[in-house]
Amino acid sequence: MNRKLRMAMIGGGKDAFIGAVHRLAMNMDGQAELVAGALSVNPEVAVESGKLLFLDESRIYTDYKVLLEKEAAMPADKRIDFVSIVTPNFVHFDPAMMALEKGFNVVIEKPITFTLEEAKQIKAKLDETGLTLLLCHTYTGYPMVKQAKQLLKSGALGKVRKVYVEYPQGWLSTLLEAAGNAQASWRTDPKKSGKAGAMGDIGTHAFNLAEYVTGLEVTHLCSNTNIVVEGRMLDDDGAAFLKFNNGATGVLMATQIAAGEENNVKIRVYGEKGGIEWKQEDANTLLVKWLDKPAEIYRTGGGYNSSFAAHNTRVPAGHPEGYLEAFGNLYRNFVLTVRAKINGEQPKEEWLDFPSVNEGVRGMAFVNNVIESGQSDVKWKEFVV
Amino acid sequence: MNRKLRMAMIGGGKDAFIGAVHRLAMNMDGQAELVAGALSVNPEVAVESGKLLFLDESRIYTDYKVLLEKEAAMPADKRIDFVSIVTPNFVHFDPAMMALEKGFNVVIEKPITFTLEEAKQIKAKLDETGLTLLLCHTYTGYPMVKQAKQLLKSGALGKVRKVYVEYPQGWLSTLLEAAGNAQASWRTDPKKSGKAGAMGDIGTHAFNLAEYVTGLEVTHLCSNTNIVVEGRMLDDDGAAFLKFNNGATGVLMATQIAAGEENNVKIRVYGEKGGIEWKQEDANTLLVKWLDKPAEIYRTGGGYNSSFAAHNTRVPAGHPEGYLEAFGNLYRNFVLTVRAKINGEQPKEEWLDFPSVNEGVRGMAFVNNVIESGQSDVKWKEFVV
Amino acid sequence: MNRKLRMAMIGGGKDAFIGAVHRLAMNMDGQAELVAGALSVNPEVAVESGKLLFLDESRIYTDYKVLLEKEAAMPADKRIDFVSIVTPNFVHFDPAMMALEKGFNVVIEKPITFTLEEAKQIKAKLDETGLTLLLCHTYTGYPMVKQAKQLLKSGALGKVRKVYVEYPQGWLSTLLEAAGNAQASWRTDPKKSGKAGAMGDIGTHAFNLAEYVTGLEVTHLCSNTNIVVEGRMLDDDGAAFLKFNNGATGVLMATQIAAGEENNVKIRVYGEKGGIEWKQEDANTLLVKWLDKPAEIYRTGGGYNSSFAAHNTRVPAGHPEGYLEAFGNLYRNFVLTVRAKINGEQPKEEWLDFPSVNEGVRGMAFVNNVIESGQSDVKWKEFVV
Amino acid sequence: MNRKLRMAMIGGGKDAFIGAVHRLAMNMDGQAELVAGALSVNPEVAVESGKLLFLDESRIYTDYKVLLEKEAAMPADKRIDFVSIVTPNFVHFDPAMMALEKGFNVVIEKPITFTLEEAKQIKAKLDETGLTLLLCHTYTGYPMVKQAKQLLKSGALGKVRKVYVEYPQGWLSTLLEAAGNAQASWRTDPKKSGKAGAMGDIGTHAFNLAEYVTGLEVTHLCSNTNIVVEGRMLDDDGAAFLKFNNGATGVLMATQIAAGEENNVKIRVYGEKGGIEWKQEDANTLLVKWLDKPAEIYRTGGGYNSSFAAHNTRVPAGHPEGYLEAFGNLYRNFVLTVRAKINGEQPKEEWLDFPSVNEGVRGMAFVNNVIESGQSDVKWKEFVV
Repeated sequence: MNRKLRMAMIGGGKDAFIGAVHRLAMNMDGQAELVAGALSVNPEVAVESGKLLFLDESRIYTDYKVLLEKEAAMPADKRIDFVSIVTPNFVHFDPAMMALEKGFNVVIEKPITFTLEEAKQIKAKLDETGLTLLLCHTYTGYPMVKQAKQLLKSGALGKVRKVYVEYPQGWLSTLLEAAGNAQASWRTDPKKSGKAGAMGDIGTHAFNLAEYVTGLEVTHLCSNTNIVVEGRMLDDDGAAFLKFNNGATGVLMATQIAAGEENNVKIRVYGEKGGIEWKQEDANTLLVKWLDKPAEIYRTGGGYNSSFAAHNTRVPAGHPEGYLEAFGNLYRNFVLTVRAKINGEQPKEEWLDFPSVNEGVRGMAFVNNVIESGQSDVKWKEFVV
Repeated sequence: MNRKLRMAMIGGGKDAFIGAVHRLAMNMDGQAELVAGALSVNPEVAVESGKLLFLDESRIYTDYKVLLEKEAAMPADKRIDFVSIVTPNFVHFDPAMMALEKGFNVVIEKPITFTLEEAKQIKAKLDETGLTLLLCHTYTGYPMVKQAKQLLKSGALGKVRKVYVEYPQGWLSTLLEAAGNAQASWRTDPKKSGKAGAMGDIGTHAFNLAEYVTGLEVTHLCSNTNIVVEGRMLDDDGAAFLKFNNGATGVLMATQIAAGEENNVKIRVYGEKGGIEWKQEDANTLLVKWLDKPAEIYRTGGGYNSSFAAHNTRVPAGHPEGYLEAFGNLYRNFVLTVRAKINGEQPKEEWLDFPSVNEGVRGMAFVNNVIESGQSDVKWKEFVV
Repeated sequence: MNRKLRMAMIGGGKDAFIGAVHRLAMNMDGQAELVAGALSVNPEVAVESGKLLFLDESRIYTDYKVLLEKEAAMPADKRIDFVSIVTPNFVHFDPAMMALEKGFNVVIEKPITFTLEEAKQIKAKLDETGLTLLLCHTYTGYPMVKQAKQLLKSGALGKVRKVYVEYPQGWLSTLLEAAGNAQASWRTDPKKSGKAGAMGDIGTHAFNLAEYVTGLEVTHLCSNTNIVVEGRMLDDDGAAFLKFNNGATGVLMATQIAAGEENNVKIRVYGEKGGIEWKQEDANTLLVKWLDKPAEIYRTGGGYNSSFAAHNTRVPAGHPEGYLEAFGNLYRNFVLTVRAKINGEQPKEEWLDFPSVNEGVRGMAFVNNVIESGQSDVKWKEFVV
Repeated sequence: MNRKLRMAMIGGGKDAFIGAVHRLAMNMDGQAELVAGALSVNPEVAVESGKLLFLDESRIYTDYKVLLEKEAAMPADKRIDFVSIVTPNFVHFDPAMMALEKGFNVVIEKPITFTLEEAKQIKAKLDETGLTLLLCHTYTGYPMVKQAKQLLKSGALGKVRKVYVEYPQGWLSTLLEAAGNAQASWRTDPKKSGKAGAMGDIGTHAFNLAEYVTGLEVTHLCSNTNIVVEGRMLDDDGAAFLKFNNGATGVLMATQIAAGEENNVKIRVYGEKGGIEWKQEDANTLLVKWLDKPAEIYRTGGGYNSSFAAHNTRVPAGHPEGYLEAFGNLYRNFVLTVRAKINGEQPKEEWLDFPSVNEGVRGMAFVNNVIESGQSDVKWKEFVV
């Protein structure tokens, strides 16, 4: 099989933020193409959005169930290969499960589901079907994040001792949800977002980044979650102490009320011999600090990088790659893997390095544990999955 | 007309650098699609490259002339709308002229042609046909470069007095062209690259950036051009003093032998009341400095930005947009303009803000003037177009 | 009275770190002079150190008690005005109390004493005598830290909601104290350093900085303190959640095992309308971020700064002032205050802005509370003074 | 001889900028003391300034000639060891020559004299007397500038090929001299400042920095000098191409009309294998870039630094040292050298590493050459000393 993979999108109509990002990321490398969509629960918006994306009118759907039914009924040389689900959290599970049941691979936004239990069901369904799922923890798609992981894995920095991960945003500093902001409205609504606000929306990214880069797992946490803006229903700020399974400790900070902050997710990890520092604002730089010699500046595109970083780099050093390229890396690796599996080939190790259902299950467990700890008077809580 | 525009590519086979960049940039926004290609002068490479890009085999050509002939002969609902020319400099003019003669719009790499005279012929042909040409001075596609231009244009910083523009690279610090590096080989070969090396390859970018951001034109220059690496045939380093048509002066520096530098093009412009600073390494930041108050940090995605910056921004502030997005902006504006013209609509002012043949003519004049000045004992040379 | 004030130093012999810093800071502005010293408990070192400092041999002492006795017995036009105590923590209280009893003003290193009770006794003695004490929380001496405090105080950023303060060091990443490092030896020894290691040494700085900049007081904390390096007796790493008396929360991080980190103390404070960010590595810059407009870069020496920042600035903007200048500001303000009081004049508000015994008492309380919380299973602990 | 050296100051009364800087720098290390002064040509200011500095009234002079006469007549155990001349340029030569004739060592501000001829006379007088002179090119006192010099000297970066040195300031963006600004008034007055404005004031610093760091000498230059602000009498902006005696080329930029710039002197030097970058704004960092491996961040206080950097460092890594410490390094090295010479000892190599009369002569030659070239129509001018 040698063709672009065919994608359908569920959610992501005009004016939605993350749907447009998915399309950009998917388009970029010319490895897949959008051929169908159920882009909104509002039929008019669904149709108009489909036209703006130049979709064939016969494949502009107004109901994702119809989309999945009809696409599944199409001949193999026409029907979609995968579906991309970019709806709010509470509409993740049903379309994902149905897509898997129809035999479609799945791309899904984080957090993977509304509850941990649902995440486990998706995991079971994937195990049963052998299909492939991409969970969009975008930050792990950056070349320098991959380089950080490989450096730590190599042992060059010694055993990991300390992790600082932070995700400061400021956009929810006012009660935007009361002012008609669509993004804010569902993200701060427990019926649509789930039991966590900031911790679910961005805390899960920070948590995932820490586990991904270190290769460790959190075993205990102690959190402080806050509702800072009056009238809000879910946490908009919080922090957690972390214990990892190798004895290291960490601090995670996630807030959406840091007025003036944009989206500067940052991680620092210290081993016995040195540490790494990466922040999204300067995404193509990885600082590697040493106990006894000058710090080093690893850069996207550097000839000295690992195969994992190199595989996820498109242009020579000095031509900045950004958020969309990191996102594109997720899609590219997912598509390369799906195509390889369709062709009966073994995907390369570098291709398989994308977040999937295991990260989804742990992310949902993080939401549960961090919220429960936040409400508890006891300091440490075991991280239960 | 409501569909993706159809593009053919000339040059840009597998392993070529800039062809892949063009495809990524073009794909990104889903506004156009690659449907045909004459991707290499080597027929085998042309075919293999076409297959890797999933082209229909009937539209994989091995000769650009055949491509242009055959595509021109296709029905309107199938034939290409524009051609993207990503060959070395000495193969720009012929395919561009032929494409225009066949009625196709053109995207072309810089420098636009091999000689100034050719550039003027292309300008004449565009005037004659009313077709649209995009010249890929990528750096003008960055949102913060557009913001800089608008700020200066607004007069907030007063009359421009001083311009510093620099483009330091290090990749030609050794005689790479003797070591079989394909990129280095043609770029340092006067038969393929033209009369300038570094000044043509990157000096033209710096020159264009200076004129674009300030809205001024260079009237005189005084240059020092050097061949630093022994055995090289064209300048690999140089600098120029500049005089602008409003009386301002400037310094332009371009080098490819600054060992350890990547691609950190940077511009600073000072007016009577303050100055701006932008560098590609931190592309989403525009520093605005003031004589008597704190400097300001403008950021891609900021709500305070001009419509020109906003139009060229895809994701919220804090999600870095990079080189490929800047390149994508050129393509998107070109495609939006071409589609509007096809539809008989007036393109928006923001869409029309992309480099075209006038910039190409001035770029070729820069090459002539800077090289001539470099060889002269007289200090100042009038900038002759 | 119009002369340099006369200082004696207790501790700070050759090869001691902080004593030399104190002398540099005191010398800088020519407002005081070192005239006497009991520079080491080792008589030979005391004498040799005194000679290296060009002290009059009659005023090189080998016992601080003798120093204080003899200086107190000198005529007013010769005897010292103040004593600077730069010994390890466990030798702070006795010389400080004796100096106060003899009528000398006191400069003292932090933490002010070995126990909270001692700190309170010093406070009582100061109240009784009307003498002046400087506690060397150096970071509050930086002009941009003062500017941050004034900006927050002005209300421009709205009510404070969130505080992040961190102090990462890496120098205790190995068991230096077992390798004969003098600095490490006493700082990690509970008999000399007190009940806290990192939290006492640098956590107190972070705590003080947070309270100073915000003008708030911590009311509760929840800490995680760790001994990371095997064989160590005191915490070398830790973090704490903070609650402030206006309802704001915070996170404090202090570690000495972040391999590769130098001394990059950093604070971020977010109010309803914006935030500030300051870090010692870039000490002359204060970032002021806004919810809805470009961030601003305040700089040491800027004409727009408050009188508090201006008073603590020596050179025009762009000439970096560093750690020694910040330290010098403490000394200068202390000396200006002491001289004013001697002359019966009212010290200016800007002079009085230096850390003293109240900060010392709260610092010792921080040590107690953070260590106790670290050992507790209960999450929040009231901050008891 | 084991005592502080005794200094007199000529110029530098209250409100003068650079005199205060000299005193701070001299005081800092406790190696010298100010004992006498002729601090202003205005007798009242001279007396008042002397009192503010706590000088003995018998040594507050109102005429530098009287100062030199009287101090020379004092007994050896009382009279000054050196004089520090901080007057405007046109009052450098006479007091310097007289001081040397009286047997005093000399510290002098740059540019060393009003004319090149005078500089040569001072050189002859120094040769004749064996006395020591410090010329205050402050930037060469920074530890990381010294480290840069040593790295280049070691050959690790290969032969030097390209030098970029820049000194952008903005403070003369308006006609300050017409607004009563004292600093601006003499610096823009050809009768007081000499034949150059910006090129003399800061261009000389940039020139000195380039020659110091590379260890090379300029042999030719081509300059563009401008008067940007209407009504000004001397250049306030300029740039020069440079040729060095090893074949390398360079670009020097110095301006005082870059509105919004503070004092961010910066140098980049590229050799065959890599390059260095240092800028005053981040003075404790030296970037070392490599053709084929990650760039390195050298930091003040790093254990890996050369003995020259280490000797000029006062506090551990991470405690920023600034402009005053760099200035203090000049004074400390000068004083250590003078004391060693008085004691008949050989000064250490690291002590002797301070700018003196040779740098003064070359600086004056730079002024002559850069101004002459600026007025010439011929491109290259030989650098004549």
